[in-house]
Amino acid sequence: MTYCLAMKLEQGLVFLSDSRTNAGVDHIATFRKMYRFSRSREAALVLLSAGNLATTQQVVQRLRREQESLWQLPDLHAIAAYIGRCLREEIASHKDGQDADFRAHFVAGGQLAGQAMELFHIYPEGNFIAATSETPYFQIGESKYGKPIIDRIVHYQTDLDTATRCALISMDSTIRSNLSVGMPLDLLRYDKDSLHTKNHSNITEHDSAFQQLRNAWALAIKDAFFQLPANAELS
Amino acid sequence: MTYCLAMKLEQGLVFLSDSRTNAGVDHIATFRKMYRFSRSREAALVLLSAGNLATTQQVVQRLRREQESLWQLPDLHAIAAYIGRCLREEIASHKDGQDADFRAHFVAGGQLAGQAMELFHIYPEGNFIAATSETPYFQIGESKYGKPIIDRIVHYQTDLDTATRCALISMDSTIRSNLSVGMPLDLLRYDKDSLHTKNHSNITEHDSAFQQLRNAWALAIKDAFFQLPANAELS
Repeated sequence: MTYCLAMKLEQGLVFLSDSRTNAGVDHIATFRKMYRFSRSREAALVLLSAGNLATTQQVVQRLRREQESLWQLPDLHAIAAYIGRCLREEIASHKDGQDADFRAHFVAGGQLAGQAMELFHIYPEGNFIAATSETPYFQIGESKYGKPIIDRIVHYQTDLDTATRCALISMDSTIRSNLSVGMPLDLLRYDKDSLHTKNHSNITEHDSAFQQLRNAWALAIKDAFFQLPANAELS
Repeated sequence: MTYCLAMKLEQGLVFLSDSRTNAGVDHIATFRKMYRFSRSREAALVLLSAGNLATTQQVVQRLRREQESLWQLPDLHAIAAYIGRCLREEIASHKDGQDADFRAHFVAGGQLAGQAMELFHIYPEGNFIAATSETPYFQIGESKYGKPIIDRIVHYQTDLDTATRCALISMDSTIRSNLSVGMPLDLLRYDKDSLHTKNHSNITEHDSAFQQLRNAWALAIKDAFFQLPANAELS
């Protein structure tokens, strides 16, 4: 599996993905699931993918090839529709009576010069939904383990530092509970109107800042738990 | 859906279940998913169920009818096998070419006089696994949201008060993140060698002790998060 998370907040976008893929326990490998597309000072677009790896790689290859047509489109909604069409066509091209699951999901977010930031969840069927200030984040893949902490912490006005920290903790909870999600991580922070995708880091198992965060959180959550008032009688 | 959780710890067993069932968003209802069987000072058995409600209700009905034969069995392993057989037969009796999903899961735990406590996860196929000191808990239904906190807090030596509190917090995280899991809750704490199932409470939306616990945890986890060290540079 995979766990990818993206948030669209007042100040910018945060993207985080793991790099574990598996097709059965004998076939676990490391593949990136974050793809960056940009055009200097004009456009920034980040894709996260989950699902059939052959499908997502083909779609991304095609988008890279057709990148110039992508930038001709009037806005990010049109770009999301374009990606959705590529995804649907790619899945259909393999399906053809075969029983395997070729489906995949994308999260796509970014900004075009002079326009608002957008974040979309693109479905295997080719359609998509946009994040809003009420629902400012999308998850794809193994999304459940890491959802409660986001629901408690993140809202549209959350600053990017806090949101990034929360994303990393959401990922940590997922990695601890599910073998099929694993390091290294790709983290990208997009500041509103910056129009580039350079603020990217690859976080490995040995990254000391991430280790510190994980350890601090493990202690903090235990402390929080053990400082709860003792059980009153539950009637 | 449903969320049920049971733990087998050194000092006893803890069972917790929600009561929401749904078959599509138009058809959400409240049904208990905890069933108690006991024979004074001789046997205590608690079942939790998830999956097709028609299936689980039929199986439980049959077990109630055949309760005397249940108590003739030599140990809880044999009882789990018996329940597994009933479950498999019930599913098979409806399947018969129909496409619907009649499957269900049970968690069954308890103790017979003079024997060790046991906790089993019984699969729709009729087979089952037993909890061990390394893996002291089972979840069925919407298990993922509430798993990280258990993994961080509960081990075989955890006392029953702490384990109960952790179970309730695991349930709270699940309820907050998933509409299909809901109040009221059934909580049962079984103290080792007590051989009864009387320590049961039904926790409603208005239960003030549970409300206090939820609120205290919501605050504690936010405090814990916002007291984390600021993001160092993630290399």
